[in-house]
Amino acid sequence: MFDHDNDVVISSRIRLARNLSDIPFPSVMTEDEAEKVKESVKKAIFDSKTILSTQFLEYDMKKITPLERQSLVERHLISPDLAQNTKNGSALIKNDGTVSILINEEDHLRIQTIFNGLNLKEAWDLADKIDDLIEENISYAFDEKLGYLTACPTNVGTGIRASVMVHLPALTITGQIGNVLNSVSKIGIAVRGMYGEGTQSLGDIYQISNQVTLGQSEIDIIENLEGIVKQIISNERKSREDLYKKRKVQIEDRIGRSYGLLTNAKVMSTQEFMKLISDVRLGAVLNIVNLDIQKIDEITTHIQPGNLQKIIGKQLEPYERDIKRAEYVSKLIKG
Amino acid sequence: MFDHDNDVVISSRIRLARNLSDIPFPSVMTEDEAEKVKESVKKAIFDSKTILSTQFLEYDMKKITPLERQSLVERHLISPDLAQNTKNGSALIKNDGTVSILINEEDHLRIQTIFNGLNLKEAWDLADKIDDLIEENISYAFDEKLGYLTACPTNVGTGIRASVMVHLPALTITGQIGNVLNSVSKIGIAVRGMYGEGTQSLGDIYQISNQVTLGQSEIDIIENLEGIVKQIISNERKSREDLYKKRKVQIEDRIGRSYGLLTNAKVMSTQEFMKLISDVRLGAVLNIVNLDIQKIDEITTHIQPGNLQKIIGKQLEPYERDIKRAEYVSKLIKG
Repeated sequence: MFDHDNDVVISSRIRLARNLSDIPFPSVMTEDEAEKVKESVKKAIFDSKTILSTQFLEYDMKKITPLERQSLVERHLISPDLAQNTKNGSALIKNDGTVSILINEEDHLRIQTIFNGLNLKEAWDLADKIDDLIEENISYAFDEKLGYLTACPTNVGTGIRASVMVHLPALTITGQIGNVLNSVSKIGIAVRGMYGEGTQSLGDIYQISNQVTLGQSEIDIIENLEGIVKQIISNERKSREDLYKKRKVQIEDRIGRSYGLLTNAKVMSTQEFMKLISDVRLGAVLNIVNLDIQKIDEITTHIQPGNLQKIIGKQLEPYERDIKRAEYVSKLIKG
Repeated sequence: MFDHDNDVVISSRIRLARNLSDIPFPSVMTEDEAEKVKESVKKAIFDSKTILSTQFLEYDMKKITPLERQSLVERHLISPDLAQNTKNGSALIKNDGTVSILINEEDHLRIQTIFNGLNLKEAWDLADKIDDLIEENISYAFDEKLGYLTACPTNVGTGIRASVMVHLPALTITGQIGNVLNSVSKIGIAVRGMYGEGTQSLGDIYQISNQVTLGQSEIDIIENLEGIVKQIISNERKSREDLYKKRKVQIEDRIGRSYGLLTNAKVMSTQEFMKLISDVRLGAVLNIVNLDIQKIDEITTHIQPGNLQKIIGKQLEPYERDIKRAEYVSKLIKG
């Protein structure tokens, strides 16, 4: 019915933490060493004999503008931490946005793949392929017993983090969200906000990811997470059905009002947008609002402060941004 | 630019209090006497040799339903007091709604005329004409020195009340409304809510009327009120202009949001409607919203609880009413 469960799952991500065997971890390495890491990774990608060599672009944190860095974070292509590392940080990003190779973040390399909907295996396959390609030219820090060595012990082993971004409006409206998130966190699953660790949930969006990286194969980790996510999907769907059955008019009213504000307001903060679009996304799933879910998710990315300014083509004060955001949102949602 | 200043003035009303000379005031009369008043007035209208005799319908308070009574109040055709007098109260109402003759309210007769916009003189001319017509068959209680005698001393003399219903959103937004209303009340002008004495202001709508009925001619009273109303109109217009000049985006945002809620909500109380439509009416005047002011005022009358149920054709619980109101409002405003 829904493309890769995209009624609930916005995106799936795999991230592999890797380090070079002959260079100290980023926190203690010299600038020269950092430069060496960059060059090795670039060589591994750009000099490879595959089609991939033509599909990546380099985004060096010290060369691109703060706005470009912010926009990359908002598109989930780099982490907030990498964006701040304007000394040594860099990213190689595939032109379709499915792969980012973060260089000199917490680890020398973080290979990230991202797909729409629930698509962990596809994301894993691609990450694995990129990983192999890089390993052809680079010697990873690897211990026969422990597995991949990483800057932070929580990543040692497979170095994998699988994460799924889910939209849980009905569980939030009915107040069940606390219980659900609480019980998954008890079984080794982390719940985070929209931009990862330390960020808040906005618009009823959560990131669900594995915490254990050691003692399980990558496939086991992914399948375990997928099983839990499917449970959450089923809870959220049941909750939506119940809501619509028992409080039809209130839900239609709530969604209608949010739609009305999104299409008619002339000033709108990101915060307010996220709150309202959460209702409208639920409305699209419930066929109350005639809008494509994928389009809603694209708009949600586009109207974040950095992306919005990139689209407009200049830096704007927060209030000007709120005006442009309202204009842009209204136009896109009305179609 | 605006039809009879209808950017600010919703309607103008004249009411003449009259009593029959040979029958005690309503508060102390018998049922037989009340019946006699009814018959005399009906005879004066229906047996008259003018075209008017065919243009009136009788609404006897004890014969019509509570819903019909409520609807007449909401259309400002009868007073809340008359609606409650199901023993002796009656009204003769002209088919175009411009004239209502209230029988056995506080006085034996209250001749009321109502016109859209600022139209006090036209309203007075018509009331005067109806008054003359009735007087051909009825002997009024009249004192050479005092003038017309009325149940309440405040109406003695001309028995006239001229009132104008004004929409003052900008004075309300800017917080100047208190001062304006305060200063007019100091010069013998009464300010009341939408349904007259003892009712609250809803949707920034106020009734402005004369308090003095003695010692001035009808024309003096009307011209005095008109002068004051023109002052208020000019204050409100200046305030709108200032608002739009100094807070353009905020005002457009406020109006846009109210429009968005009116056209997309699925449940709406009268209270909320009045609050939102006040913004939209201001938006229509400022050309921010493409809607006819007259149509807005009609919708405002139609969605009041009694009228709405009359239109739907049955009695509804408040919550069902709020659902039907939302549906009706959205349809009418979208056109």
